[in-house]
Order: sequence, then structure tokens, then C-alpha cells
Amino acid sequence: MADFQAPLRNIRFTLFDVFGADQQWANTPALAGVVDRETAEAMLEGAAKITEQEIAPINRSGDEEGATWDNGKVTTPAGFKEAYDAYCEGGWPGITGNADFGGFGMPKALGAQVDEMLYASNSSFALYPNLSAGASLAIEAHASEALKALYLPRMYAGEWAGSMCLTESHAGSDLGIIRTKAEPSTDGTHKISGTKIFITGGDQDLTANIVHLVLARLPGAPKGPKGISLFIVPKINVDSAGELLEANRVSCGSIEHKMGIKGSATCVINFDDATGYLVGEPNRGLSYMFTMMNYERLSIGVQGLGCGDRSMQSAIAYAKDRRQGRAATGAVEPEAFADTLLVHADVRRMLLTMKSLTEAGRALSTYVAMELDKAKYAESTADKVNASAMVALLTPIAKAFLTDMGLDVTVMGQQVFGGHGYIREWGQEQLVRDVRIAQIYEGTNGIQAHDLLGRKVVFDRGEAFGLLKTEIDEFISQASSDLLAPYCEQLSAALMELSNLTDELIQKVDTNPHEMGAAAVEYLHIFGYVLYGYMWLRMASVAEEKLAGDDGFYQSKLDTMTFFFARVLPRVSSLIISAKSGCENTEINSDWL
Amino acid sequence: MADFQAPLRNIRFTLFDVFGADQQWANTPALAGVVDRETAEAMLEGAAKITEQEIAPINRSGDEEGATWDNGKVTTPAGFKEAYDAYCEGGWPGITGNADFGGFGMPKALGAQVDEMLYASNSSFALYPNLSAGASLAIEAHASEALKALYLPRMYAGEWAGSMCLTESHAGSDLGIIRTKAEPSTDGTHKISGTKIFITGGDQDLTANIVHLVLARLPGAPKGPKGISLFIVPKINVDSAGELLEANRVSCGSIEHKMGIKGSATCVINFDDATGYLVGEPNRGLSYMFTMMNYERLSIGVQGLGCGDRSMQSAIAYAKDRRQGRAATGAVEPEAFADTLLVHADVRRMLLTMKSLTEAGRALSTYVAMELDKAKYAESTADKVNASAMVALLTPIAKAFLTDMGLDVTVMGQQVFGGHGYIREWGQEQLVRDVRIAQIYEGTNGIQAHDLLGRKVVFDRGEAFGLLKTEIDEFISQASSDLLAPYCEQLSAALMELSNLTDELIQKVDTNPHEMGAAAVEYLHIFGYVLYGYMWLRMASVAEEKLAGDDGFYQSKLDTMTFFFARVLPRVSSLIISAKSGCENTEINSDWL
Repeated sequence: MADFQAPLRNIRFTLFDVFGADQQWANTPALAGVVDRETAEAMLEGAAKITEQEIAPINRSGDEEGATWDNGKVTTPAGFKEAYDAYCEGGWPGITGNADFGGFGMPKALGAQVDEMLYASNSSFALYPNLSAGASLAIEAHASEALKALYLPRMYAGEWAGSMCLTESHAGSDLGIIRTKAEPSTDGTHKISGTKIFITGGDQDLTANIVHLVLARLPGAPKGPKGISLFIVPKINVDSAGELLEANRVSCGSIEHKMGIKGSATCVINFDDATGYLVGEPNRGLSYMFTMMNYERLSIGVQGLGCGDRSMQSAIAYAKDRRQGRAATGAVEPEAFADTLLVHADVRRMLLTMKSLTEAGRALSTYVAMELDKAKYAESTADKVNASAMVALLTPIAKAFLTDMGLDVTVMGQQVFGGHGYIREWGQEQLVRDVRIAQIYEGTNGIQAHDLLGRKVVFDRGEAFGLLKTEIDEFISQASSDLLAPYCEQLSAALMELSNLTDELIQKVDTNPHEMGAAAVEYLHIFGYVLYGYMWLRMASVAEEKLAGDDGFYQSKLDTMTFFFARVLPRVSSLIISAKSGCENTEINSDWL
Repeated sequence: MADFQAPLRNIRFTLFDVFGADQQWANTPALAGVVDRETAEAMLEGAAKITEQEIAPINRSGDEEGATWDNGKVTTPAGFKEAYDAYCEGGWPGITGNADFGGFGMPKALGAQVDEMLYASNSSFALYPNLSAGASLAIEAHASEALKALYLPRMYAGEWAGSMCLTESHAGSDLGIIRTKAEPSTDGTHKISGTKIFITGGDQDLTANIVHLVLARLPGAPKGPKGISLFIVPKINVDSAGELLEANRVSCGSIEHKMGIKGSATCVINFDDATGYLVGEPNRGLSYMFTMMNYERLSIGVQGLGCGDRSMQSAIAYAKDRRQGRAATGAVEPEAFADTLLVHADVRRMLLTMKSLTEAGRALSTYVAMELDKAKYAESTADKVNASAMVALLTPIAKAFLTDMGLDVTVMGQQVFGGHGYIREWGQEQLVRDVRIAQIYEGTNGIQAHDLLGRKVVFDRGEAFGLLKTEIDEFISQASSDLLAPYCEQLSAALMELSNLTDELIQKVDTNPHEMGAAAVEYLHIFGYVLYGYMWLRMASVAEEKLAGDDGFYQSKLDTMTFFFARVLPRVSSLIISAKSGCENTEINSDWL
């Protein structure tokens, strides 16, 4: 596999040229003193360096060795501890952390780029700091000042890690039915008992302590999702100064054997009267989880993007190097024993499909990250409310669509390699295995689709969708240069189809709630392609401005946009037919399934 | 994972009710004395028994253990040898073999069903007999009577296996550039020297001998594909009575570490002045390979079908058993802690997508197998010629489309399981890994698409396509019952779009040969969906006739057809746009790839 090269030029193009993140930061008082273009450039280069030099090199070996479990203890693959230490020395675990507790307070728009490099270089490794970041977010948003002061600085330093203990063997997508119990003690703490499964980083040998965030039920709590509370349960008990005491009653029962992300320990965690600390108010645990989920779900989308980018990089390098067959119009290099794969239109079709999806994915993740930043840091309440609505609408799409496209892209990147794509040494097949989980965890992509169509569209009667539609319509009306006009027209038509479908589905779901589940996944995909079309227009309009003196980079954006509109966006037509076909065709006598 | 259950009722429906294979056999003198419905039923039941009881149980363990290599020798996973012996005792290796040399002489239409059960139960295991079958076919078609008499009876008995030694490290899709050499000896044999890679079953511990079929160049042979000859190179030399002598100069240098089919040994085979026997005439090796490829490629398509069927069986069982969430219209089983997954329309959408693709795939593989039988056994030359044209046209579609759909179906079957789909114990992820190779080997699916559009459509100016179109049009004109009429109309429209696209592409490729590669994969997919639509109409028209007294089986066929026409066939619309978009959009300055 080609060495990982952080796509810095493309990241800069997206972040600064297309979306003007540095302008947004300068115009946002809460960020203006924290980050500017120079700081951001330095951080991007630092992230590139550590992912290229420390983290990418242990990706294949980590897959081969895997995380291992012995007698209750997890060992991460060789090199993970050293790389993790280097990662902490660079201060990376606290990059987006609250500065009041020792974080760097960087915007998510920057954090998302670091996430991309992490996942592209090594998805298994990336999960350890990423789960900690998620746990930190939940603590920062909902825990008492005392708990924040105790836990956050050590988590931002990477000294302690975090885990999210939600799933139980009978309760995955449906968290309302969890059974883990929390009994109040007389000292204000709680005794937590139950077994959680699929706990990423539930145990590891990277950090001195692990801060488990655990969903559990208090005695007498209401049934269902409104009776679930959130607790901090440290692996090792700590005193109020943060000194480690005796082990808590938490144990790792085993780890899962998985298709991929083998260097990431996926743990069964047993809580046996373990000491826990209530976060926030009783019975609000699930809603607390959802406040940090937008950040986490975007990060998982970025896993799809990162793995796809890595696969594309390798496929391009291979297609330029590997010689097989001759161009359809005759030998391009007659002196060589064969032409490179690149002469074949079908190979270029695959590479351009990968490129058009990957670069649009990067644009979308950056765009959503900037909306997250607006929702958090904007001065005016109106801007915050508007951005929050956009985030709510776009997050399930970013999570599901980026990961669905991530699988497609990595499968294509494997196909370019032919038989060698199936061999482990080349690394392409690992990317397929590693990215596959991203369509499943943090809410399956089917759950994301239900969230999108149900909560974010039908529930608000398309209001947030209307905001977005207005934005895209306005962009199109301003962007119609001669060059872009036909693409603007094509996107307008697709957006109108999406808009009509949205109206139609809102009506249909009122009549029959099953219409939602029957159309949700296709609706999300249509929405995703339309957004990618919008992202390509955003990129193309900047590229067009910069064509004078271009070294080829900006022309390549225009060419890739052309490809996207000719060959990818048209997928919408078929999906519309399917999404409109109604729920009746999903009914069948289940005896004959 | 649910135990494998051979889908016998569905196989019977397809083979006998839909396509009347027993009638075809009865009307074909060369088959009438060999096979009838009763024989076929007995064989199907026998195949079901051995795959369910002997071969499926070692599928997971075989994946965990994998084939291993030590000091030049391959060991297959525990249980493979015993299962292989049982398979041979049942006579299965010779099921479609030439009766003159000890085979059963069964038609491919029956063999394809056995293949499906084999791949569904254990793809790694299936490959050992399947490669032997391919080698036997090539020997039977092209070797001298003496070689046939020496090798075939032992290969049909499973006592010796076969391998196909084509690929070299620099020569995969492009076999014209292989370098393995064959030097004539004075005794009429040849000395073979070279290294072959990706040799399935190139070594194993199942059989006393392995008959390698090797592509190599004779001294002074023309450059390129017309200078390649085919040789038999036994692992162990044999005398003319078939007694084993000393080892030949053939060695297994290593085996590959792969994404899946881990129980199948994928070998590097070194030939170092090994004794070889020329098959047929010099320099005709590649064309000999192609004569048996139609059989082999169909079998690989059937791997896609089998893995998909297995994944669907497990997903259906899981969706009926796993409880999570409540139906959109309120609890279906309020007394249970949650409803089954089956209440969710999105889950049913996934299951019905899997079912509609799997059952159409079985119909297509059976249909193509029957055309193969006609091409081989038909009385009249006209029938043979006609069937041969159909086989040539349909084989690349059967190989590529069944395996592309196989990946989609297994990925969906994994998704139904949520997180458990990613865990090895449940088996769903293995099916994804195992089926993935089928899109790559025996000619990548991109190569299949080039074969279809280039050799089979453009080259004969759409003549074979015209034959098929006439057949479908005639079927539609006769099948339009009130119930089927709207579907007939929809298929007619899709077929017309395919036909127009065919004409357009034939013209465009004349103008610019790159148009072929740029459109080939999408063309194949459009063709595949149209054929699946035809298959569903064939199935539905039979199901409709049998509705009286139906236990639900036939109604489920009509329901699944409805689903297919509503949600799957419409994919054609988007693909048409993309396929017509031309090759220009695949051009990009390669520096910026």
C-alpha cells in the first residue's frame, strides 16, 4: 500500500478557499482569539506529520496482531502505546476541548480535519482518542463543575481515556430497554450493576484510567427512554485530587472478534456494584447522550471519508504503476510490456467516482462542522438557532451517507487492484473491513435515516429542510456563470425533486406511519447526493475563480464536478421512484420470508 | 448463524416449474436416458444433505483456522479432508463429468444447483472441487484420448484434483504477457518453468495428486495471446496406468493471506523444469481456456448467489427472532419487551431486496445453465448455434451481476444484524468477505463488462442481443394477464431503453473505442436488471397459474416481483443516464488524480 499522505492541499482548499473557515473564526468573538489561519495551518501540518509518521505505519500490523484479551486485561497491538504517547505529547486529545479545563478550544471545523487524517491513517487507533473525546463532550455539557474539574483536564491530556457504555446484549438500537441498574448509596454516589457490550476502548493499556460513561436505571425510574440516567464510572477509583485509588468494581469480560478495526478493543464490560457518579439530573441520560451525538456522528461520517480517501490514494498510485493491457485506441507506451491501468476508461471511471465522492464528502463534513461551530460559538441567538437546526438536519446524513459512500469507495479502491486487492498485504481489503463498522455503530445507517426523515423532517414539517433549500437556491442564483449554469440547472432540478418528495412523504407519513421506514434510507441517499451536488458547485465556483495561473489543481476540481454531475448525481432519478413507491410493497406474509 | 438449509423448494420451483428443465431433458436424446425428474430430485436431496450436514458445519471453523502452509505443504482446515472424502464417496466431483470417462454426465442445470448449495454452505470448500471441475472440462474438451483416459476418471472420482495455473505476478487480466516457458523434451513431453500466483487449490492435503493446467510459451511462439500453449503438469508424476511415481518438479512457495475464503489455499506455484504434457495444439492455450470459461464463470456467479442466499436465510431468521423497538403504528406484541425487527418497514425493505435479487439470480443462473446444456446437447445445429450465442452473451452478465448483487445482498444481510453483523461468531461478515473475491477472480467484473459490451455486443453488432430481445418481447406479448400487464409494460420499456442504448453504444464505440470502457460496467448492470425483470415475469407467470390452493408460496413470488418492479428495476433509469454520458467525462489530467 502506498504510504499515507495527508491530503493537506485538498483540506486547505475545502476549509479556507471554499468555506472561508478562517473568516468565520475571525468574525466570531469566541473563536477570534483562539484560532486563525496560521494556527490552523500549523495544526494541520502537525496532524499530518503524526498521522503519516507515527500512526499510519502501525495500521497494517495492528490489524494483523489485533487487540488481545487475557485474564481481564486488554493489550493493544505493538506500537499503539508509543504512538498514543506521542499523540498525547502533541496535545491532540484536547484539541477541541474546553479551554477552561485545559483543552485547546479549537473549532470542530479544524477537529474534523484531524479526525479525517486519524481515520485515514489508522481507524483502530483513531477510535481510542475519539471515544474519549465523545465522553469528554458529554461530561463538559452535563456534569457538575466538580466532576468536570476532576475529569476533563486529565482526559484532554490523554492521561485518562473515556468510554461510552450504552449497548446491552438485548438493547442496541433500542436503548429504552436497557437493564443496568444504579442504586443510590448514602454518600451520594451510586452502585452500578449490569453488563454492557460493544464498548469501544472499554479496556486498553494506553492510559492510567478509563472514565466509563454508563447508562443505567435508578430505582423506580419510569419505563423506557425517559427512565435512563447517565453515570461516570471510573475504572480505577480516584480521590478528589485525581490521585488513583483502588480498582473500581469494573471488569472486562472479553473482547469481540470482528470483521475489522481489529486493533480497537471492543469490550464486554461488567459493572458489579461499581461506584458511579450521577451526571446531571436523574432520568435525563438519553437526552444527554443525544446532545453530544451530533459531534460523534459527524466523526463517524469522517471515518467513512478517511478510509475512502486512503483507498483512493492507493488505487491512484496503483493505477499509475501497474501495467496491464493496452489502451483501447492502441498502445500508449509501446516500448513497455503493457500500458498502465490508467489508460483504461473503466479504471478512470472508478477513480473519478472515488474522487468525486471523497472530495464532496470532505466538503460536506467541513460544512457540517462549521455549522456545529456556529451553533456553539455564534454571537446571536438567531444564528445559533439557525445553525442548530441545520446541524440537526444534516448530521444523520453526514454520518450515514459518508459511511455508505465510504464502503462503496473502498470496495472500488479494492477492485482497481484486481486480485491484489483481496490480499491482506496490500491494505485495500483492510479499509473495506475497517470502514464497514461505520455504517453500523453510533446508530446504524437505517436508524440515521429514520432520525432524518422522522425527527428532522416530518416532525418539523420540513421547516429545517426549507432553510437549507433556500440557501442552496440562493447560491445557485448567484453562482450561474456560463461554465456553471448547466450544473446549477441540474442541481436545481434535483433539489426540486427532493423538495417535492419531502412534501409528499410528510403527507404520507401522516396517513400511515410505516411510510417513514419504507422510504427513509432512499430519502437519505437522495438528500446526500443533492448535498454532494451542492458541495461540488461550491467547490467549482471557487475553482473557476482561481483558474488563472492554475497548475492544474483547480481544473481538476471542475473536471471532477463534471464527472459527478454526469455519472453520480443522476442516481437520484432511480431513488426517487423507489422512495415514492410506498410502503405497501414491503408487506409480505412473513411465513414466506 | 442459522443452520444452512438448502433452498430445495425454491430450486424445484425454478428448475422444474419455471423453466421445465425435466421437459428439456426428456426432449433431448443425449440427456433423456441420463436424467429425469426423479433422478434430479434424488441428487438435489443428496446435495442438500451433504452440504447441510457435512460441509456447512466446517464453514466458520475453516475461516478461523484457514489453510496453512509449512515447508512447501498446505494443510486444509480441520474437517475439510473428512468432508471431501464424503463428497467423493457420494460421487459429487463427477456429477457433470463425461460418462465415457466415469462421470455422471448430468446437465449443467442440475450442476448449477449443486454449486449453489456448495457455495452457500462453504465457499472455501466449494472451490476445491470446482477448480477440479474446471480443469476436467478443459482436459475433456481439448486433450488427447490418452490423456483423457489417464486423468479424467481419477478427477471425476475426486481421487486427484485439478488446478488452473494462469496468473503470473505481472500478468493477471492481461494473460497475453505471461512468461512461463515450456521447452520440448525428446520424449514428447515438455519442461515447464515459471512461477504462477493466485492458484486456487494449487496445493492441498485432500487428494493424492493435483493435475495442474498450466499456460506457458513454447520456444519461438508468437508474442501475445496467440503464443500461449496449455499443458498438464501433475504434482506427482504418473505412469500410463495412473500409478503414482516420483514427485514432479512443482512446488508450492507460499499461500496468500486474504480477506476471505481463508479455508481455500491460494498458492504460489513454482515450476522448475517440471514435466508437462501438451494439451491439444501449440499456441491455442488461451482459446482452450475460453471454451471452458463459460462453465466456470457461471459457477462463480453462483458463488454470489449462494453467499447471498445464505446471508438472507440468516437475516430472515434473525429479524424474526431479534426484538428491538416497536412498530411505527404501535406495539405488535405489547406483552414482549419489544417487537421483532420484522415490524420495521426498513428491515422488510432490506429482506425483500435480498429476496428479490437472490431468487432472480437463481432463475438467471438456471436459465443460463440450461442454455449451456442446449449448446452442448441439443440435437439440431441451429439450436446449438442459437444457444451458444445466448451463452456467450449471458455468461459475463451471470458472472458479474450475480456477484455484484451477491456483495450487495451480503452487506445488507450483515446490516440487518446491526452490531452483531460485524462480529465473526455470527457468520454474516464472513459471507461478505467470502463473496467479495467472486467479483475479482475468473476475470474481474470490469473485464466481464468489457467482454459483454466489446466481444458479445459491439463485435456482432447486437445480433445475439437481438435474439434475446425477441425472446423477451415474445414472452411479454404472451404473458400479459391482467395481473402481469403493468409489469410487462414496465419491463418492455426498460428493454427498449436497453435496446436503444445498445444501438447507441455500437455507434459510439465505432467513433471512439474508449466509449466502450467508459460505459461497459453500467451497461452490464442495466442488462442485469432487465434480465432479472424478465426472470421475475417468468416466475410470476407460473406463480399466477398456481395460486389456486396456494399455501402462500406462490403469492410470495408475486409479492416479491411487485417489490422488484417498484424498487429495484427502477435503478435502470439512473444507469442509463450515466452509461450514455460518454467517455469524455472520464478524461482528467492524471497529475491531479
